[in-house]
Amino acid sequence: MSTETGWVPPATSLYTDHYELTMLQAALRSGAAHRRSVFEAFARRLPDGRRYGVVAGTGRILEGLRSFTFSEEQLEFLVRTNVVDAPTIDWLADFRFTGEIYGYAEGEAYFPYSPILTVESSFAEACILETYILSILNHDCAIASAASRMTTAAGSRPCIEMGSRRTQEESAVAAARAAVIGGFTSTSNLEAGYRYGIKTVGTAAHSFTLLHDSERDAFTAQLASLGHGTTLLVDTYDVETAVRTAVELAGPDLGGVRLDSGDLVTQAQWVRRLLDDLGNHNTHITVTSDLDEYAIAALASAPVDSYGVGTELVTGSGAPTASMVYKLVSRENDDGVQVSVAKAAKNKMSRGGRKYALRRLDDHGVATAEVVGIGHRPERDSNDRPLLEQFVKNGELLPGFTGAEAVQRAAERHRLSLAELPGTHRRLQRGEAVIPTEFEEQP
Amino acid sequence: MSTETGWVPPATSLYTDHYELTMLQAALRSGAAHRRSVFEAFARRLPDGRRYGVVAGTGRILEGLRSFTFSEEQLEFLVRTNVVDAPTIDWLADFRFTGEIYGYAEGEAYFPYSPILTVESSFAEACILETYILSILNHDCAIASAASRMTTAAGSRPCIEMGSRRTQEESAVAAARAAVIGGFTSTSNLEAGYRYGIKTVGTAAHSFTLLHDSERDAFTAQLASLGHGTTLLVDTYDVETAVRTAVELAGPDLGGVRLDSGDLVTQAQWVRRLLDDLGNHNTHITVTSDLDEYAIAALASAPVDSYGVGTELVTGSGAPTASMVYKLVSRENDDGVQVSVAKAAKNKMSRGGRKYALRRLDDHGVATAEVVGIGHRPERDSNDRPLLEQFVKNGELLPGFTGAEAVQRAAERHRLSLAELPGTHRRLQRGEAVIPTEFEEQP
Repeated sequence: MSTETGWVPPATSLYTDHYELTMLQAALRSGAAHRRSVFEAFARRLPDGRRYGVVAGTGRILEGLRSFTFSEEQLEFLVRTNVVDAPTIDWLADFRFTGEIYGYAEGEAYFPYSPILTVESSFAEACILETYILSILNHDCAIASAASRMTTAAGSRPCIEMGSRRTQEESAVAAARAAVIGGFTSTSNLEAGYRYGIKTVGTAAHSFTLLHDSERDAFTAQLASLGHGTTLLVDTYDVETAVRTAVELAGPDLGGVRLDSGDLVTQAQWVRRLLDDLGNHNTHITVTSDLDEYAIAALASAPVDSYGVGTELVTGSGAPTASMVYKLVSRENDDGVQVSVAKAAKNKMSRGGRKYALRRLDDHGVATAEVVGIGHRPERDSNDRPLLEQFVKNGELLPGFTGAEAVQRAAERHRLSLAELPGTHRRLQRGEAVIPTEFEEQP
Repeated sequence: MSTETGWVPPATSLYTDHYELTMLQAALRSGAAHRRSVFEAFARRLPDGRRYGVVAGTGRILEGLRSFTFSEEQLEFLVRTNVVDAPTIDWLADFRFTGEIYGYAEGEAYFPYSPILTVESSFAEACILETYILSILNHDCAIASAASRMTTAAGSRPCIEMGSRRTQEESAVAAARAAVIGGFTSTSNLEAGYRYGIKTVGTAAHSFTLLHDSERDAFTAQLASLGHGTTLLVDTYDVETAVRTAVELAGPDLGGVRLDSGDLVTQAQWVRRLLDDLGNHNTHITVTSDLDEYAIAALASAPVDSYGVGTELVTGSGAPTASMVYKLVSRENDDGVQVSVAKAAKNKMSRGGRKYALRRLDDHGVATAEVVGIGHRPERDSNDRPLLEQFVKNGELLPGFTGAEAVQRAAERHRLSLAELPGTHRRLQRGEAVIPTEFEEQP
């Protein structure tokens, strides 16, 4: 699997917890490893007070599935460190996923117990994908969910992802991708542009101004090289002086100014007036500086043209992980019959049985419930929308879910999925999920 | 650069924000790109209420520095998407870092304004490393700092890193590495074992029990394959029944049981009594289930042998990013003289000038201050310990800071660094940094 840019995912097979391979070993020996099994990834709850979640990461899971194989060096490591025995090493040497994967498409809204991703295969094959699948879903769903709240708060104004420096370097790439699924228009992250064709943008840093002997020299250099459409950072010294210098040097074509400190609401207002007074009606104002969905909402009435969002986006705005779990819900018995299974441990409610899901819509096309059928497909009214798609069939990727196009498609799906939810999904204050999850047992 | 295992870091050069390359372009054109510059990475504050931070990530920065070069495909991407002009592409094609890097060694405690990492080179070379350096430091320091509080709370009991599934897949590997620097003894993450020689461990999941026709079958399978020293998960159904079954099957040699739900304090107490009553005095109890430093402290009096820590570790226990910034503090002027620089923007205090640092120690070897000299090395008393080491000289890595050994060395350094701090560093409740940061201006 490679994208159009030539980027090839790294080996993904050791993004795996030790116990998955030792369980594999024990199950190979007991014979149970070959039992046909169904694992499901889902969240028992949304982050505290959130009204919906956003699915993201599935495309990345699928892109890395082909490289979830074990190289000579990796196997040698497992032998040398005595992780597993020789029969298990032999099994891993031949491993390639041959099962089925279903789930919610990226961009779709989800709710507690929505079966986001379903893996159907032998226990052995599904078991060793656990950590890989959960790492991706837990991160990417957390970021897309935060992004969605921010873009909802921003309304028609674009949000730009600028958080790379505040998260691990590979998380940064995944975060940029998830942000775009959640409605962001562009990113500062070049690797995300390279891998996924996401539009990259940038302004300038304070260091660029400080490098030059004066702010005027710095602006002159930036305008000469990047053109008058560039965005100048105007808060290194005095904002008013900087704006006047910028307009003097660039004239009415100046693309934009960036404000990165201070009281952004007040500042945006007087900077807008100043720009207008100077005749720069088309010069945009971009604001940055620790924005989250609440700060964005507070800026709604300020004359701001775009938001650059960093830390709070890439840390999930208070919810850096999506609480996804991956549970065995059904497996074959010795007679070849599928049996629903669930643990009974305290304070962690689980429901055995394979899940099917649809979004129940009223006559106006507004969602009223997440209907989860246990062990069967729920009855479907004419308006209801089935939610499960098949991504992998007999180990082969089905087309349409990976690469750059999949990201754009997911962003569009997200827009449609939100449009279907009750308007209360736009409320930023804490509350319940906007639609309830209803379980339908086998009739 | 490759580790002993054959793992080769990926290309790191596009872990870079768009604006770094456009600033480079403008500075190449203005001529300022070649001015000798000093950039520093530091945190203006510790996370709310924390008493110290822990440096981690430097080794990863250095390991990836060699692959911070631009391939044909990457340059083609930058051309195709019009990120920068032809002269800049030519410069990038030849790029390889040729400057100096200094900083705090991994494992060292840090405080507000500690100069964690200093890059000295042309503006051009230092500028394009910004996002790469900050991504790594912000993530790895956040995790190591959380890890250190947890291992401090755990005292002599080992902490095991088990959070891979709750963070992005590459963050998981970096988190395991940072956790070990912060005092964790092992990880569930196989890739971390592969790359950094960290000990990997594991128990079993509920799915393994559910896969089999009975808990007894599952335990029998696990013991047969993994030996009696294995750790059995005993809370899938009824804990007491499971413990009795486990002891019946494994006898007194049973390695351990894992508790993953319920009231762990009470449960650990009666499970310990039950094990002792059954003669299993040497069977260990491992507890997991959403532990953080406070939960670990609350378990101090419970008969627990080790802690498996997941979500709260990999999300930094409330502080998922370390607020590190990377600032130009000094640069050459046209006369070849180094000039201190700092921005004056509101609410973001910056101090120009290159920083030097030492830890001031009293006669008992207890730290009393972080002394930061601005523009000069601070006066050193006999007890004081200089904190800056050189990692890179004329673009070449100096030995001792990368690979598996560096991780173990950092863990040891961390132990020594903490031992030097006032005992109040062990307090988990919110408070001030345990030592003040004192600035010494040029005399």
